[in-house]
Amino acid sequence: MLTNVEHIGIAVRDIAASNDLFTKLLGIEPYKSEIVETEGVATSFFRINQTKIELLEALTPTSPIAGFLEKKGEGIHHIAFEVDDIYAEMDRLKGEGFTLLSETPKTGADNKLVCFLHPKGTNGVLIELCQERKNSD
Amino acid sequence: MLTNVEHIGIAVRDIAASNDLFTKLLGIEPYKSEIVETEGVATSFFRINQTKIELLEALTPTSPIAGFLEKKGEGIHHIAFEVDDIYAEMDRLKGEGFTLLSETPKTGADNKLVCFLHPKGTNGVLIELCQERKNSD
Repeated sequence: MLTNVEHIGIAVRDIAASNDLFTKLLGIEPYKSEIVETEGVATSFFRINQTKIELLEALTPTSPIAGFLEKKGEGIHHIAFEVDDIYAEMDRLKGEGFTLLSETPKTGADNKLVCFLHPKGTNGVLIELCQERKNSD
Repeated sequence: MLTNVEHIGIAVRDIAASNDLFTKLLGIEPYKSEIVETEGVATSFFRINQTKIELLEALTPTSPIAGFLEKKGEGIHHIAFEVDDIYAEMDRLKGEGFTLLSETPKTGADNKLVCFLHPKGTNGVLIELCQERKNSD
């Protein structure tokens, strides 16, 4: 079950400048910054009520964010939905005909297990499922 | 003050087909459909916790959504933040150097007063401010 819009990911070219911009826009400062080596990205997080805004800057030319910026420019990159059971939700969506970008959940930013759906099957929207990691994951 | 991610707007070509797709994806049905004549759009709304997903189909070739679809194709169109005082927030953001797309709030879908910020000043993200209309608005 999808339980919340956990965050919205925004691709930016210069995360330091965008941290300043979004601090002015949202009226709050980022509460966390994190490097995700496996995805080649620097991230920062702002929280508005129960949803986070995640800024993403590419750290390597092979990062998915580098490809997105080159093709589409800066802007909204993905929507992440919190799920109560990521394995069950991946099974359910596969059964509904959606294409998952990984067969098993990957480790994402912010202590999460994550799985993306192919945007060709979701009206061009890159969807992330995410679930807080437990000690046993 | 921005108090919530009120909704995420997604531009689609065929809202009937996308209602089916998002019903499968989100595991819930749209709770409302609405035509917004002034914007030339058909909309439908899904609710996940405190955030809505708004699908938007263009009804006229001059609708902003028609222009977006032609230029960028289907995908995420805007993020709408709920504000506690839209007039105060418009003043604050103008003072911070953001460009507002209207000088006064407009009437949007879902009984809201709305104002958009120019995406050139917000890393390519189209931002909407929205506030529930009161009887006196």
